[in-house]
Amino acid sequence: MKRIAFLLVAVTVVAGVLAFTAPASGRADEQASPIYGVTIPPGYRDWKLIAVSEIAAGDKSQLRAEFGNDIAIKAFQQGTLPFPDGAIIVAQHWMKESSPENDKVLAMVPMVAGRDSPKSFVPGSFINMQVMVKDSKKYAASGGWGFGDFKDGKPGDEALTKTCFPCHQPARDHDYIYTHYAP
Amino acid sequence: MKRIAFLLVAVTVVAGVLAFTAPASGRADEQASPIYGVTIPPGYRDWKLIAVSEIAAGDKSQLRAEFGNDIAIKAFQQGTLPFPDGAIIVAQHWMKESSPENDKVLAMVPMVAGRDSPKSFVPGSFINMQVMVKDSKKYAASGGWGFGDFKDGKPGDEALTKTCFPCHQPARDHDYIYTHYAP
Repeated sequence: MKRIAFLLVAVTVVAGVLAFTAPASGRADEQASPIYGVTIPPGYRDWKLIAVSEIAAGDKSQLRAEFGNDIAIKAFQQGTLPFPDGAIIVAQHWMKESSPENDKVLAMVPMVAGRDSPKSFVPGSFINMQVMVKDSKKYAASGGWGFGDFKDGKPGDEALTKTCFPCHQPARDHDYIYTHYAP
Repeated sequence: MKRIAFLLVAVTVVAGVLAFTAPASGRADEQASPIYGVTIPPGYRDWKLIAVSEIAAGDKSQLRAEFGNDIAIKAFQQGTLPFPDGAIIVAQHWMKESSPENDKVLAMVPMVAGRDSPKSFVPGSFINMQVMVKDSKKYAASGGWGFGDFKDGKPGDEALTKTCFPCHQPARDHDYIYTHYAP
């Protein structure tokens, strides 16, 4: 456990999350999800894209992007199931916002042939991000996946984190992953 | 011109677009956009993500992803304007499709607090991709950008390609780029 804690601290320092003068002990665990101990992978925003998606829910709609580390991307591209240990998938969620700037252009040059006037939507404020880490031994009780849900860099509480695996269970035929690779 | 044609052929060969036995002469130009001679950048699908977006137009709505090469991504992340020569931006457009599989899960576990039932949308069939290449000398007449619009790997015709720059002109204060980097 000490070694794992040390690694977590190291990773967190690399990510620049810890202030230089912050005490190292304990801080790493505060940034890890309950139950699974999953942390935000450093540099994930620059990872390759698996797919984009949308959750439409009135004025609370989201635009989403799913990123994968190289192990996850390779598995997606080659159709490998189950995902190999070490695969990490990150889903990032933004509020879906109207873009009046883009709408003005669309009104001049209809880029999309449709019966309705096309409207542009873009990522607004950052909502949350979710992380899934594959480790078939460590997370054997949850399909081989560890879960974390982060808002403002802080992991959600135990009650929230408990909902992750049940929500992914219906996708068990695809190793608990809903996202398909967008060609 | 001969040197440019050679480079285009080389790039196209790397991309695996040319069949091994195909005659090299002429083929590269067929894959390049009219007016600008812009080609599909090899490996762009694995580039870093600038942002995601949506064009909503009834049953012809699109989900979109904008990718940048390292020069473009660095400029976006650092807020550099105008974009440096060598920057390439690719926009990829998919039909927006409903996901009944995801909707079943959302019905069980409302992931989005909203007055409407959340619905999931994912990338469907590939529509087209658009490429912008920054070369302030070569493309001085079009704000320093060369344009290409590709469907099934083939560039659109001259009439279509002529619409690119006028459509981007209203964004001249942001070096003709509409997309903002999604944090």
